[in-house]
Amino acid sequence: MILTVTLNTALDITYRVRSLRPHTSHRVSDVIERPGGKGVNVARVLAALGHEATVTGFAGGVTGRAIRDQLTGTSRLTDALVPVAGATRRTIAVVDQLSGDTTQLNEPGPQIEPAEWGAFLDRYDELLPSASAVALCGSLPPGVPVGAYANLVRRARSFGVPVLLDTSGEPLRRGVAARPDIIKPNADELAELTGSHEPLRATQDARRRGAHAVVASLGAGGLLAVTPEGRWRAAPPARLHGNPTGAGDSAVAGLLSGLVERLPWPDRLARAVALSAATVRATAAGEFDREVYEEMLERATVSAEFSAA
Amino acid sequence: MILTVTLNTALDITYRVRSLRPHTSHRVSDVIERPGGKGVNVARVLAALGHEATVTGFAGGVTGRAIRDQLTGTSRLTDALVPVAGATRRTIAVVDQLSGDTTQLNEPGPQIEPAEWGAFLDRYDELLPSASAVALCGSLPPGVPVGAYANLVRRARSFGVPVLLDTSGEPLRRGVAARPDIIKPNADELAELTGSHEPLRATQDARRRGAHAVVASLGAGGLLAVTPEGRWRAAPPARLHGNPTGAGDSAVAGLLSGLVERLPWPDRLARAVALSAATVRATAAGEFDREVYEEMLERATVSAEFSAA
Repeated sequence: MILTVTLNTALDITYRVRSLRPHTSHRVSDVIERPGGKGVNVARVLAALGHEATVTGFAGGVTGRAIRDQLTGTSRLTDALVPVAGATRRTIAVVDQLSGDTTQLNEPGPQIEPAEWGAFLDRYDELLPSASAVALCGSLPPGVPVGAYANLVRRARSFGVPVLLDTSGEPLRRGVAARPDIIKPNADELAELTGSHEPLRATQDARRRGAHAVVASLGAGGLLAVTPEGRWRAAPPARLHGNPTGAGDSAVAGLLSGLVERLPWPDRLARAVALSAATVRATAAGEFDREVYEEMLERATVSAEFSAA
Repeated sequence: MILTVTLNTALDITYRVRSLRPHTSHRVSDVIERPGGKGVNVARVLAALGHEATVTGFAGGVTGRAIRDQLTGTSRLTDALVPVAGATRRTIAVVDQLSGDTTQLNEPGPQIEPAEWGAFLDRYDELLPSASAVALCGSLPPGVPVGAYANLVRRARSFGVPVLLDTSGEPLRRGVAARPDIIKPNADELAELTGSHEPLRATQDARRRGAHAVVASLGAGGLLAVTPEGRWRAAPPARLHGNPTGAGDSAVAGLLSGLVERLPWPDRLARAVALSAATVRATAAGEFDREVYEEMLERATVSAEFSAA
């Protein structure tokens, strides 16, 4: 199985309103709830691709119960979340029916107590021996040490399990130093990590800081991968319109599934780009459209990158 | 005990953000959750005034469990909510830290099945014999018949229990025809019921439609009461600034507590105005400030209304 870690899981709630106008009252016409947090999204896409995926991290309160109830009903997904006293956060996406634009409200997440962090580490160590790969995803809730991901990268490496890290800020900086197999920053995260806004230069710098492979997601510019086996750029055939929510998580699922299937890097990247595009084009935020995926898998372009930096 | 009915209970969630800007992402700095829906608010104020209050209506899903857990912890409040398969709605109040203004998002509420409505009617009939008064408050969730309040008014009257109705639109129109003891419309609800925007004329018309007493809440204009014992206007000593959320529910609690304590109408109205003012001035939305209440109870003005309509 593939293990995904989401320390700050969320109950993702989508509201549809006619048009959001500050300081007025709105009747919500449509409410959708689903388990969220980046690693949970990654696991859902992996399961849809036919992989067994196990979700760990923290869940608590009635919101935690709601996400666990929904995870239990998803085939090929195993819930290995660790219970905590605090309540799992909610995120609210308010979608304007008129413009299609989204306004996002994100709760901070529960305070994690030291004993809860210890219980998580025990669970993680129990799960690692049966994992073919692990993804460490998203922000840290209050109370989790800032070096958490560095610790989790080292533990995965000590078990010989390949590890992908997808986070930002100081947790990314420390995590990279622990030598993860892959990191997948976006342009902003990469610039924050390296100080450089030139993607190829920044990507190479991130490798020098410890990441074995760096796959930078450059929005409409597709993916830039710098790996021990070579450098590639991968992109969809045309610029896509739609909702980018979860597109990065789908790309992570593409990279991880390609890794455990031992696909060559260009095929992993084509899959990541195709899944990402199929998520942007899906009707529901964070889902992926299988037809678009199949089509994009044929039509994505992956080209070797020769420019010197 | 005083019975309050809230068919569309809610988990009221308050978010504090720096400034709400549509189509951007916001980090919520502060999350407060409390049981809501108009009748629940009324019961909480009654309990704070020293009355035993019983809350009935519907609750379901994890949101329903959250409100029941919190109600159980409140002294002098009894939870007699009827479980339903659907989930209790949430309301989200987004408070701007900069301006203090609030943006409201209200979910529609769960679908109530005919068997659930039947179970509620049984519970209501069980509770009525021990009730000294009953308040029927707020909107109807989907699936509840539009004549629901008319039915509940008639049942209360058949048990000889005085009944206050606080709702709007067609449920109010039908409920009034069933001859409730008191209705407490605001200016808009009263105009919608009667077609008249002149408060005294509209209030008298509402009595002709079936309400024994009408207490119209006219915002900054205070209360206008037309009853079999006389007509009064009641107002706070000065215009108040603050958050009006729940002020109407506090007025209902003032009227009901005054009714069961057999206070004369002017004293009931002074209490309603004082509680309403103390709610507008409270730091947390929907709570009331006891010091302001005590002060306003001394300073509220109640005057007999002599003008002919």
